[in-house]
Amino acid sequence: MRVLILGGDGYLGWPTALHLSRAGYDVGVADNFARRGYDLEMGVDSLVPIAPLHRRVERWEEVSGKRLDVFVGDLTEEQFVYDMVGSFHPDAIVHFAEQRSAPYSMLDRKHAVYTQVNNVVGTLNLLYAIADVDPSIHLVKLGTMGEYGTPNIDIEEGYIEITHRGRTDLLPFPKQPGSFYHLSKVHDSHNIAFCCRAWGLRSTDLNQGVVYGQSTPETTLHPDLATRFDYDAVFGTVLNRFVIQAAAGEPLTVYGKGGQTRGFLDIRDTLACVELAIRTPAKAGEFRVFNQFTESFSVGELAEKVADAAGGAEIVHLDDPRVELEEHYYRAAHTKLLDLGLMPFLLGDELLADLLSIARAHIERLERDALEPSVLWRSTSSTVTRTGRSQAEGSSPEPSR
Amino acid sequence: MRVLILGGDGYLGWPTALHLSRAGYDVGVADNFARRGYDLEMGVDSLVPIAPLHRRVERWEEVSGKRLDVFVGDLTEEQFVYDMVGSFHPDAIVHFAEQRSAPYSMLDRKHAVYTQVNNVVGTLNLLYAIADVDPSIHLVKLGTMGEYGTPNIDIEEGYIEITHRGRTDLLPFPKQPGSFYHLSKVHDSHNIAFCCRAWGLRSTDLNQGVVYGQSTPETTLHPDLATRFDYDAVFGTVLNRFVIQAAAGEPLTVYGKGGQTRGFLDIRDTLACVELAIRTPAKAGEFRVFNQFTESFSVGELAEKVADAAGGAEIVHLDDPRVELEEHYYRAAHTKLLDLGLMPFLLGDELLADLLSIARAHIERLERDALEPSVLWRSTSSTVTRTGRSQAEGSSPEPSR
Repeated sequence: MRVLILGGDGYLGWPTALHLSRAGYDVGVADNFARRGYDLEMGVDSLVPIAPLHRRVERWEEVSGKRLDVFVGDLTEEQFVYDMVGSFHPDAIVHFAEQRSAPYSMLDRKHAVYTQVNNVVGTLNLLYAIADVDPSIHLVKLGTMGEYGTPNIDIEEGYIEITHRGRTDLLPFPKQPGSFYHLSKVHDSHNIAFCCRAWGLRSTDLNQGVVYGQSTPETTLHPDLATRFDYDAVFGTVLNRFVIQAAAGEPLTVYGKGGQTRGFLDIRDTLACVELAIRTPAKAGEFRVFNQFTESFSVGELAEKVADAAGGAEIVHLDDPRVELEEHYYRAAHTKLLDLGLMPFLLGDELLADLLSIARAHIERLERDALEPSVLWRSTSSTVTRTGRSQAEGSSPEPSR
Repeated sequence: MRVLILGGDGYLGWPTALHLSRAGYDVGVADNFARRGYDLEMGVDSLVPIAPLHRRVERWEEVSGKRLDVFVGDLTEEQFVYDMVGSFHPDAIVHFAEQRSAPYSMLDRKHAVYTQVNNVVGTLNLLYAIADVDPSIHLVKLGTMGEYGTPNIDIEEGYIEITHRGRTDLLPFPKQPGSFYHLSKVHDSHNIAFCCRAWGLRSTDLNQGVVYGQSTPETTLHPDLATRFDYDAVFGTVLNRFVIQAAAGEPLTVYGKGGQTRGFLDIRDTLACVELAIRTPAKAGEFRVFNQFTESFSVGELAEKVADAAGGAEIVHLDDPRVELEEHYYRAAHTKLLDLGLMPFLLGDELLADLLSIARAHIERLERDALEPSVLWRSTSSTVTRTGRSQAEGSSPEPSR
């Protein structure tokens, strides 16, 4: 089975490519290196050093005897997409290749527009290429649990049965995304659902929770196979950031009250979920939605867990730079991947100890000021300073106008 | 009160500008003439000739003694938007300035991408400009009833109260748009709702039905003040198209069974609704949604009405070029504008007689082959022929791949 991983140089794309390659799939990876560019723009870097893509791929061939096809290009360029899909002719395409940081999308107008155009146009080009090359190609698209927002009812997997004035229908679950990035994923989901309906395409939308962890059985085979470990306030996800703060002896920074509850999953479960989705594809015309997370935690609970695992760490509460409810109801279904056979790695002491030891091994690479939240949701322009970090103009939580 | 009409050279933007100008508002109109460009691209034209914008504006000043400020530029150009909003400093912005044809958006990949980027980026730039110039500016945004699709439950005005597993919340009504154009409007709605929440902007989304009619009390004051009357299969809305077909002695072409039911309204009600929305603005932070139509009809019923009014006309059923339900439940709320005082012009013999007489007066301008549906939803590429009309490659209702 042939699988093309878009965004194959990224935090999750790279380990997914290795996992599927080792499992016997014929794997191609595509990337435009935009993610490495964002690091340069922001003046930050992965705490764990990562090798360039071509070296990673060569190393994987040495270590595993398996070859990865490499496509370097941009999904917003139609010809690149058509050529790649036509020449590799995958059975499934796993699409990680989007700008995936909410704060980055909220920096200013330019970054908001970039995020939406990049993500939406890249996915539109891909949908057209699939329809024209081979509509039976299964599109496995990374979405986010953040598409749903925090409604005061249980979140279902993509669809909800609504009974209203005596009639009933199964309808798309209402979306209340909380950043221009999350909005771009909602736009994608609507576009893909339409193409499944109009052209008979088959797609699985993986509404993923917040991923933590840095090691997979394949990335630990050689330092050149390591994946990213981000801690900065723009690209670092919360649990990885807390771990690095604890390792550095810095306080763990909780935004607001810390009652923000989200779905989380281990990086190894991301790999397993993607493989499960590929192995049992959506039907022709089906737009299938899975909620891809294994446990829910509040941000405050996570900080406590990390502080405990580190043998004690200070927890401080900062003004929440985002516009979000700091305390709310949260209960989201996530049974469809379990039904397909997912055996989750739940968050435990062992994982936290592993992450802390990785962080400690590389702590000399830490840039402390990159930890500070610098993008304010209520501001229309946060600017990148001379030292490379972004900073909102003014520190007021009120809109700066 | 100062009102800026974006898309002020278009079918509805122009009569809206005149209506508000006559009613005493200080009106500015902005346009990039994209709509006239689509005509040139497709090789079609309004049945009623329309004067260039500058002549229209001069004529209006002669006829009414009222001045309209003119801004020529493109909403996707940030600087134009900021300069215009900053210099005119409106109390309300009425935003008609989007590519508004579903078939045009379904022509091929290029037109799908153009439609979504043009509509979404233009609106994003506008949201940023409002937030930066003056967040109290009321954005009155034209949406479409087509955002909802045809669910098997009653359609509400933007939001629906959902009770699920013992809990209740008021959530955005689920959307099932049926073309890349309709999708772009759904994307806009999500983006605007977010900006109201994050930045405290105020906006009214007018989910408009299909508009019919060509005369308003202002456009009939002089031929140079006339607005468009489109009949071609790409830009003509269904009732106007039927009238022109009847006037030309051509059969009225119903797509599929004709059970497709939609909300409709008279062009004069569009103007009244926009004014009602402006006069009672949304509150700061409020994203208000009105369903802007006055009556529901099936396409088959409309054909019968026009045939009767014309003293008989043949009705033929063509294969539906779109992907849509040809028979379905349809019931949509539309009380909020009535509550604000709308007194609708319902569809009657007088309006049809007026439209037929306008069509007959200009029938020598008809290009018959422009009436034929040429964009197939199931095809990924309909091409524009040498003679200027678009044509889907192949005539199969199956996807052409």
